[in-house]
Amino acid sequence: MTCTHTIHKHDHHLGWDNTFEPVLSVKPGETIAVETIDASGGQLGPKSGLDDLVSLDFGRVNPVTGPIFVEGAEPGDAVAITFRRFNPSGWGWTANIPGFGLLAEDFPDPALHIWNYDTVATTPAAFGPGGRVPLKPFVGTIGLALAEVGHHSVVPPRRVGGNLDIRDNAVGTTLYLPVEVAGGLLSLGDTHAAQGDGEICGTAIESPMDVEIEIGLLKGANFAFPRFETSGPVTSHLDVKGYWVTTGIGPDLMQAAKDAVRGTVERIARETGMSAVEAYMLASVAGDLRISEIVDMPNWTVSFYFPKVVLE
Amino acid sequence: MTCTHTIHKHDHHLGWDNTFEPVLSVKPGETIAVETIDASGGQLGPKSGLDDLVSLDFGRVNPVTGPIFVEGAEPGDAVAITFRRFNPSGWGWTANIPGFGLLAEDFPDPALHIWNYDTVATTPAAFGPGGRVPLKPFVGTIGLALAEVGHHSVVPPRRVGGNLDIRDNAVGTTLYLPVEVAGGLLSLGDTHAAQGDGEICGTAIESPMDVEIEIGLLKGANFAFPRFETSGPVTSHLDVKGYWVTTGIGPDLMQAAKDAVRGTVERIARETGMSAVEAYMLASVAGDLRISEIVDMPNWTVSFYFPKVVLE
Repeated sequence: MTCTHTIHKHDHHLGWDNTFEPVLSVKPGETIAVETIDASGGQLGPKSGLDDLVSLDFGRVNPVTGPIFVEGAEPGDAVAITFRRFNPSGWGWTANIPGFGLLAEDFPDPALHIWNYDTVATTPAAFGPGGRVPLKPFVGTIGLALAEVGHHSVVPPRRVGGNLDIRDNAVGTTLYLPVEVAGGLLSLGDTHAAQGDGEICGTAIESPMDVEIEIGLLKGANFAFPRFETSGPVTSHLDVKGYWVTTGIGPDLMQAAKDAVRGTVERIARETGMSAVEAYMLASVAGDLRISEIVDMPNWTVSFYFPKVVLE
Repeated sequence: MTCTHTIHKHDHHLGWDNTFEPVLSVKPGETIAVETIDASGGQLGPKSGLDDLVSLDFGRVNPVTGPIFVEGAEPGDAVAITFRRFNPSGWGWTANIPGFGLLAEDFPDPALHIWNYDTVATTPAAFGPGGRVPLKPFVGTIGLALAEVGHHSVVPPRRVGGNLDIRDNAVGTTLYLPVEVAGGLLSLGDTHAAQGDGEICGTAIESPMDVEIEIGLLKGANFAFPRFETSGPVTSHLDVKGYWVTTGIGPDLMQAAKDAVRGTVERIARETGMSAVEAYMLASVAGDLRISEIVDMPNWTVSFYFPKVVLE
C-alpha cells in the first residue's frame, strides 16, 4: 500500500499558528505517509541518560509535521483522519519531568526510562523487574490550526485537537477534528508506542515513527469537540488477565484521580520492588483512569485500572 | 453451590449508622446469599409509569441489606467481598430524575424506562428503536459503617464504600473496603443489570436481584480507599464492534465530562430518532467516561465511549 503523498520530518513546526505555510495540499480520499520526530524534538535518543533529560530545551518539544492543507475544508466542517498504519522505530522513552504530571508534587526528581522493542511483532517491551507492556502505537498530537491569531503553545489540546493524547488514535480509528480555518491546516507528531488513559506521569512511551493516514472531509459537521470511532475493542491487548483497580472518592475529580493513581503506584512499588517513580512511569504507559460514577452527589468515584498482564 | 448464610430483604436499612444492629455475624471464608431490594425501595415495579416516578418518596430510596458483622475485622483492616453469583429478577428501570444526573440542567423533566430481560441468558435487553444493551449484573451500593457517629446519607460513596456504582463489582471481582469500626458492618443493595462508567443520567438498569458473596479479611491493610481486582476483561461484552467516542476538552474535568457526554447524546438521538432523554438514559447504561489525558496543562481530555454494538 503506497500513499498518495509523503511528508518528511524536516517539514515540522513548533506550536500552532494559522499563518504557517502548508507543506502539502491534499484532496479528501488521498493518503499521506508522515514522518514524525519524537516529543523531545530529537533531543533524546536510544542512548540518552538522565543528564540529557535534565538539559532538555523545552522550546523544542513536541514538534509536529505539517501543516497539511485539506482542499475544500471550511470552518464548520470536520477533517477526518483514518489511521492506516504505523511503522515504529523500535525505541522510545518515558520520563518524569519535574513540575509536569498528575502527581508532580509527589515526584519532584527527574527520571528517565529508555525502551527497546521489536518493531515487527510489537511484542511487549520490557520494563525493569517484572513489567512488560503490550504496545499499541498511536498519534499523541494531531490537530488543526486555531482561528485565533498568534502563536499557541503545543502543550494543551483544544477543540481543534492538538495534544489530545488519546491512546485510541491508533490503527483502524477515524478521528474527526473541527475546522476553524480554510484548509484546516492539519499537523501531527508526538507518536507513542503505548499509553494508558490519563497519561498520568505526563509522558507515554515516546517513540518516533512513521504514520500512514487517509484524509476525509465531513462538510457542515459543526462538532463542538473532536470525536472518533474505533473499529473494534480498545483494550483487548491488555485485559485478558483482568485488572488491579484502586479508587479515589470525593467531591473533586482531580483529587479523586490523584488518590486513585497513588493507590496503584504504591502497590506496584511494594509488590515488585521497583522504585515509586518507576512504578509511576509504568502506570502511565499501561493503566487507565476511568470515572466510575459522576452523579452520586457530592462524591464522585474515579478508578485507576492497571492490567495484571503487565506484571506476569 | 449453597451459601453458609442467607439474608432476606426485610433485613435492610436506609442510610449508614454504626449503631445499626448486625443481622448476621460471619467468619472470613464464609459465603452469604443476600436478597436485595431495588434502588426505589420497591416503589417502582415492572408495571410502573411516570406517575410512580414523580411521586417517589426519596426517603425510601437505596435500601441496603445488612449490616453483616465480620468476625475479627478491626479498624485498619480491609473486608474482602468476592462476587460469586447474581440471580437477576428479569426486570429493571432507568430514570431521569429532575435535579440528579450529570446533565441535570439539560434534562429538567422526569423520564422512566422499564426493561424486561432474559434471566437465564442475560441476553441484551431491548431499548426503544434499535438499542440493545448487553447486561453485566453488579452491586451498585456496598459499604461498611463509618466511624463517624450519626446517620449518613446513602447517596454519596465514601472511603468505606457505599454507593460506589462501579460497574465492575460483578462476578469474579474481589472488592476490598477499609474498615473503620469493629466488625466492619457490611451492607449491600442497589443492584444493577447494566451500567457504563459514570452512570451519567444518575441511574443504571436498576434491577432487584439476589447476590452470592464470599467474605474475606485482610488484616492491617490500611487502604486509603476501596480497591478491587477483576478476574478478566471488563468490557468484552460490549466492545466487539468498537466505539463511537465524543470528547470534551478544557481545564475543568466536570465540564469536559459534560461536553463529552453531550456529543454522544446528540449523536444517538439524531441517528436513531430517539428523544434526547431516551438517548441520555441509553448512554448511561452502556457508555463509559474515560480520562484520556490529565497532564497537558491547562486542558484535560475526557472521552465518552459508546459501544457500537448497542445500536446494531
